[in-house]
Amino acid sequence: MSLLVVGSVAFDSVETPFGKRERMLGGSASHFSISASFFTDVRVVAVVGGDFGAEERAVFANHNVDTTDLEVVPDGETFRWFGRYEYDLNVAHTLDTHLNVFAGFEPKLSDQSKKSRLVFLGNIQPDLQRGVRTQVANAELVALDTMNLWIDTTRESLQKTIEVVDLLVVNDAEARQLAEEANLIKAARKILSWGPSTLIVKRGEYGAAMFTREEYFAIPAYPLESVFDPTGAGDTFAGGLMGYLSSQEKLDSAALRRAMIFGSVMASFNVEEFGTERVQRLTHDEINQRFADFKQFTHFENVPFDRAVRAAQ
Amino acid sequence: MSLLVVGSVAFDSVETPFGKRERMLGGSASHFSISASFFTDVRVVAVVGGDFGAEERAVFANHNVDTTDLEVVPDGETFRWFGRYEYDLNVAHTLDTHLNVFAGFEPKLSDQSKKSRLVFLGNIQPDLQRGVRTQVANAELVALDTMNLWIDTTRESLQKTIEVVDLLVVNDAEARQLAEEANLIKAARKILSWGPSTLIVKRGEYGAAMFTREEYFAIPAYPLESVFDPTGAGDTFAGGLMGYLSSQEKLDSAALRRAMIFGSVMASFNVEEFGTERVQRLTHDEINQRFADFKQFTHFENVPFDRAVRAAQ
Repeated sequence: MSLLVVGSVAFDSVETPFGKRERMLGGSASHFSISASFFTDVRVVAVVGGDFGAEERAVFANHNVDTTDLEVVPDGETFRWFGRYEYDLNVAHTLDTHLNVFAGFEPKLSDQSKKSRLVFLGNIQPDLQRGVRTQVANAELVALDTMNLWIDTTRESLQKTIEVVDLLVVNDAEARQLAEEANLIKAARKILSWGPSTLIVKRGEYGAAMFTREEYFAIPAYPLESVFDPTGAGDTFAGGLMGYLSSQEKLDSAALRRAMIFGSVMASFNVEEFGTERVQRLTHDEINQRFADFKQFTHFENVPFDRAVRAAQ
Repeated sequence: MSLLVVGSVAFDSVETPFGKRERMLGGSASHFSISASFFTDVRVVAVVGGDFGAEERAVFANHNVDTTDLEVVPDGETFRWFGRYEYDLNVAHTLDTHLNVFAGFEPKLSDQSKKSRLVFLGNIQPDLQRGVRTQVANAELVALDTMNLWIDTTRESLQKTIEVVDLLVVNDAEARQLAEEANLIKAARKILSWGPSTLIVKRGEYGAAMFTREEYFAIPAYPLESVFDPTGAGDTFAGGLMGYLSSQEKLDSAALRRAMIFGSVMASFNVEEFGTERVQRLTHDEINQRFADFKQFTHFENVPFDRAVRAAQ
């Protein structure tokens, strides 16, 4: 029951209208693995520099995240991202990016990692993602994230990568751009025709939707009065989603639906504080409580309208 | 078990990328009442000109919509709207508006209408809406629609009107503009503090949300591959919502939740063809089928994550 994530580990410096933080632990693999660790055993494949210290290692260790495959380049520096959000927290403004050791990242998987049952290919160059995919040939489910940069610059390679994964997790705009189709339902149909059996679309404050060849499932977002820092929400969602799936024996529709709720729950906590601060100190009771809230605020009884009842009135 | 709607009856000329129609029956009261007629008895308070003919009357008659309070100004012309949609069907471009007899509209309610159990105040000038509200003092539930024009130009009067209704039905942008608050949850709390017990927010392709002082409920939209003409979708939603409520004895949370689904179902049919064309020939089986679809694509089991189960794996 193991889950592997390949992605970035970074130091993020973030400013929002509500405050700022310097050099927080960030990156797709960090957000993903800490979130997933509440549900399953996670291994991280990523690269960091010599500046990655005991404090950061302790965060992974405290969540039982396996960092055997966390490559260290002693004389290099860890990927750094500097970003700002205005009051419209949906839009991240990148102030600066120092790729540092991440520029030369070549994912290296240990034998244990190659045997992972579930794999999440975080948002990195699609050739690298495909390279990892070939090394986990026996995985039961391989999921993929990407971004507009790769759709713009490496569409052909990205499409080849999509063809060989089981699950694509992207946001609304990315799904439309990828399929070159404004209608999301048509876009989903097109993307599924390329190979994946499942497409999950993240819609921020509007929730998330899942498409397979047989079904459609959609949920609203958890209602939040204060969004503090949206950085990493997508990866935290994916971590909850894949972490929960990894805990389940059967990866069927019912499990996928619940996994989307757990993903949304984890993302809802993530945005309430800076970086991974809130998720780090979560409890299972808090997670299950928000899951139950989801059930409560989406539930209704299927009672068809009955003309006979009406006529009698 | 009667429902009253006060609003506009119009002739719409609409162009979309998929075709055009001249002089279709339109207006808030038309879309609302035809939609609601599938669930309950509806009365319309509106004004038309001498050009409003037998063909249009037949549409109302065929749906048992009571037009006793449909005022006719024989030497005037009916309200006309000319609009166009580009490929982004979320944005209506108004090409021309001839208010005609609608400019002098003063809603006149018959004694029967004043006894209506449920009332929908369609999108007209808020002083007029408040004038109607005082005439239906015994109504069990009075609902209100409005638009950005009235928020911009008559905010004070609009707020007074909101204070004396039970249910406000607006779209996402209107709710935020009204409350002058970007966060929808905070906006909802503010609006409810003014008086209404319930706020329903329409979110187009993202569904709808309901807020009361005690609860939150949210649903995605019905997934549609082809949206043909969105004109009247909001009023068709409100018609299904209020029509269903009118058919129910108890206007409790369970009824409101189902009413939102029926509203969404009716709106999903409305946008599939021009004007009221599709809704006019709907059947109850078709409506109940989409209601059942809603249940299917939003359902999940509340199974909390169990650490013990995980530990045993």
